[in-house]
Amino acid sequence: MPAPKAVIDYINANADKFIDKLAKAVAIPSISGDGKHRGDVVKMAHFLKGELEAVGVSVELRDLGKHVMDGEELHLPPAILGKLGNDPKKKTVLLYAHYDVQPALKSDGWDTDPFKLVIDEKTGRLIGRGSSDDKGPLLGWINNLQAHHALGLELPVNIKICFEGMEESGSEGLDDLIKAEAGPGKYFDGVDCVCISDNYWLNTRTPCLTYGLRGLSYFKLKISGPGRDLHSGVFGGTVHEPMTDLVYVMSKLVTPDGKILIPGVNDLVAPLTDKEKALYDRLDYGVEDVESAAGGRIAISSEKTTVLMGRMRYPSLSIHGVEGAFSAPGAKTVIPASVSGKFSIRLVPNQTPDNIRAFVEKYVKDEFAKLGSKNTLEIEELHGGKPWVASPDHYNYKAAVKATEIIYGKTPDMTREGGSIPVTLTFAEALDVNVLLLPMGRGDDGAHSTNEKLDRSNYIEGTKLLGTYLYELSTVQ
Amino acid sequence: MPAPKAVIDYINANADKFIDKLAKAVAIPSISGDGKHRGDVVKMAHFLKGELEAVGVSVELRDLGKHVMDGEELHLPPAILGKLGNDPKKKTVLLYAHYDVQPALKSDGWDTDPFKLVIDEKTGRLIGRGSSDDKGPLLGWINNLQAHHALGLELPVNIKICFEGMEESGSEGLDDLIKAEAGPGKYFDGVDCVCISDNYWLNTRTPCLTYGLRGLSYFKLKISGPGRDLHSGVFGGTVHEPMTDLVYVMSKLVTPDGKILIPGVNDLVAPLTDKEKALYDRLDYGVEDVESAAGGRIAISSEKTTVLMGRMRYPSLSIHGVEGAFSAPGAKTVIPASVSGKFSIRLVPNQTPDNIRAFVEKYVKDEFAKLGSKNTLEIEELHGGKPWVASPDHYNYKAAVKATEIIYGKTPDMTREGGSIPVTLTFAEALDVNVLLLPMGRGDDGAHSTNEKLDRSNYIEGTKLLGTYLYELSTVQ
Repeated sequence: MPAPKAVIDYINANADKFIDKLAKAVAIPSISGDGKHRGDVVKMAHFLKGELEAVGVSVELRDLGKHVMDGEELHLPPAILGKLGNDPKKKTVLLYAHYDVQPALKSDGWDTDPFKLVIDEKTGRLIGRGSSDDKGPLLGWINNLQAHHALGLELPVNIKICFEGMEESGSEGLDDLIKAEAGPGKYFDGVDCVCISDNYWLNTRTPCLTYGLRGLSYFKLKISGPGRDLHSGVFGGTVHEPMTDLVYVMSKLVTPDGKILIPGVNDLVAPLTDKEKALYDRLDYGVEDVESAAGGRIAISSEKTTVLMGRMRYPSLSIHGVEGAFSAPGAKTVIPASVSGKFSIRLVPNQTPDNIRAFVEKYVKDEFAKLGSKNTLEIEELHGGKPWVASPDHYNYKAAVKATEIIYGKTPDMTREGGSIPVTLTFAEALDVNVLLLPMGRGDDGAHSTNEKLDRSNYIEGTKLLGTYLYELSTVQ
Repeated sequence: MPAPKAVIDYINANADKFIDKLAKAVAIPSISGDGKHRGDVVKMAHFLKGELEAVGVSVELRDLGKHVMDGEELHLPPAILGKLGNDPKKKTVLLYAHYDVQPALKSDGWDTDPFKLVIDEKTGRLIGRGSSDDKGPLLGWINNLQAHHALGLELPVNIKICFEGMEESGSEGLDDLIKAEAGPGKYFDGVDCVCISDNYWLNTRTPCLTYGLRGLSYFKLKISGPGRDLHSGVFGGTVHEPMTDLVYVMSKLVTPDGKILIPGVNDLVAPLTDKEKALYDRLDYGVEDVESAAGGRIAISSEKTTVLMGRMRYPSLSIHGVEGAFSAPGAKTVIPASVSGKFSIRLVPNQTPDNIRAFVEKYVKDEFAKLGSKNTLEIEELHGGKPWVASPDHYNYKAAVKATEIIYGKTPDMTREGGSIPVTLTFAEALDVNVLLLPMGRGDDGAHSTNEKLDRSNYIEGTKLLGTYLYELSTVQ
């Protein structure tokens, strides 16, 4: 069922107050990746605890212990765990968002102070770090709780809350918490489904629901030879140069048009069905949207579905850079002693870091051996995460489709994303429930970039969408 | 003729005082590449002016104007021009050295303060920045002048001096000075030959004279596509990635065993004669010396002459690194928007930057075109210098061979160097005279590295060598 008119009216009437609250949240520079701001991340947790308690949620700030970042031991920001409602006749939905943000400096190229929310009346943009990623969506939930609290209305579902403060820094500590609190009698016991609001529409026009994410295998390919950096005048022509070897091996990984050359990797990809292909044909997103977002006419194909499936349902291999070589401006005549190429493969079902690793290691070693070089090669997996795909036919998705149709008058695009939100998989596996990604912002919000924004309409209509989703969820079959 | 016994005795008797003078020179951190130390470079010039004037040289500190370094306008350190003797019956030799040094910080890995000369009594090493490059050799000349001044002896030749303070930073200003002062009635008028003491023995055992240097063509290969750095999750598989293209093109430049693949480049190399090959066979330097210096068993061949000619008489191509890609430790999932590969070719006769450039540009553009990429390529030559080879049969070399045999009891190796000392070519071309490279230090001095040293014996015997060279020069036919 739709949300009561009183709730929608309350949201409309209080829109400016909700924006004021977003401004307060943005003003706290809760940058998890910068040790100097750790106090601000904790301050943000306390701010949210106050907001949640004010609307009747029982809140616990859960200590996640310590970690080491850039050589400094720091206390992790707490996870915010909350509960509201305990009616066994109602569904229980777990709401996830994060309250930390990416770093931002005016000098990075922001037009305004990143930690002062600027309301651009002409464009309707709310500009500030975290506006879209992820303080706006997080407050979207609180706005709904506030509406119900003010109106004296009970929520149509029980909610559990898990808001974290380390998402932008690898969600440290959260996986352990989720696994520890899964199971009978534990905190997450009784959760029927999960809703994560932490991604974006594909474009600026059409809302979407996201049912899949790619995984990742990230490799460091290190080639070493000399005992120290050498002068190319003195040693050029006399020794095997690690950088020459590295460039050779890296040139064998992927073709310039994106075909992965490592035997075995593509064979693992689940076959494409006609039904699935039709999904991509229908998406409100084209080659020109990809090129506009990339800022260059460089799409790998002129076929829309090829490009979209390149992002959503096929693996890709990117070479990110080289550590240890000369990387500054200017001309330095060095033969670097040891160079590490970094590359990663985005994974899709049925690829996993475990089944990919062996293929990559064997192939890289074989290609290096062909060179007959006296240098040495090491290959290391720096990072890995499995892909995730949910069933878009689950009631969790049906409720979100309905809510989107009510608020936006459009059927949402069903999308898979090329990146990863690792906590998605953790919730899906640890709690064994359906997870829904229900985005609030648009594709051009610039989440990790300068001048991050959330459109005012996305914030306010998005707040209504989240509330309506809870009502649709309560009655959906 | 040999130097008079009195001169040699004076040098032996004053060895400790000469070391004290080297300590004073090392204590002035005359780092030309760091604007903060520009005052120290100028201080060094004034210190040397005082030393030279004290032994009867008429000195001019020649203003070379201003330049911009790291965005800051700075006054260039002066060139030290000096004259001693004006006897038309004597030969006139121009002495070149430089009084600036490479940067050095204790934290770079020095065992001792780099700007405090440490005398290691056990090994006989004089350790400090500039000890070998090039303050020791520079003072070697002054020590000889001091000996003659103290003994009331006239020099057997007229000398002109050109000491510069920007050698470690591209010799800015010096080329213009040399060209302006060449010709009748100018400062360098009447110079019969040039002696540069600013390189090293091949090894730690056998003195050498150097009659050739390789040139250099340094290229920046830039590939651009996206309007900004992209997230590999979102864009991997959808766009042409500049880094993939760059790695492909760079893998076509040189084979892992050092063969340059750019058509035309190798065809320019002057053919090897049997007589020349025999020179390399005779050199007191082997594969194990190269590997020991490189710090790894990575020589391109087990054939001594192949390895030595790879350094001295054939071109080489080194890939130095990539600007604009991810180069830090860790795992960043970026698709860099614009990446610039840096590579350079060491040139030998009859290659020049001008005749190499066209081959490189055409080949790189052709290889890139084969990729069918939508990215764009630019290629830029950052830096170029011609190779230089002198006639080792000239009387300038004969005098140095004789002097070496007298002081060290060994015939020096005749070597060509893989690197470049651009001022060599400028002197040779502008003054149209023979130039001799007469090194003082050993191959393991670590000129641009940590714990730079000059062996005490190389400093003192080297001082005798320089003096003896002047006497041999005065009588050689």
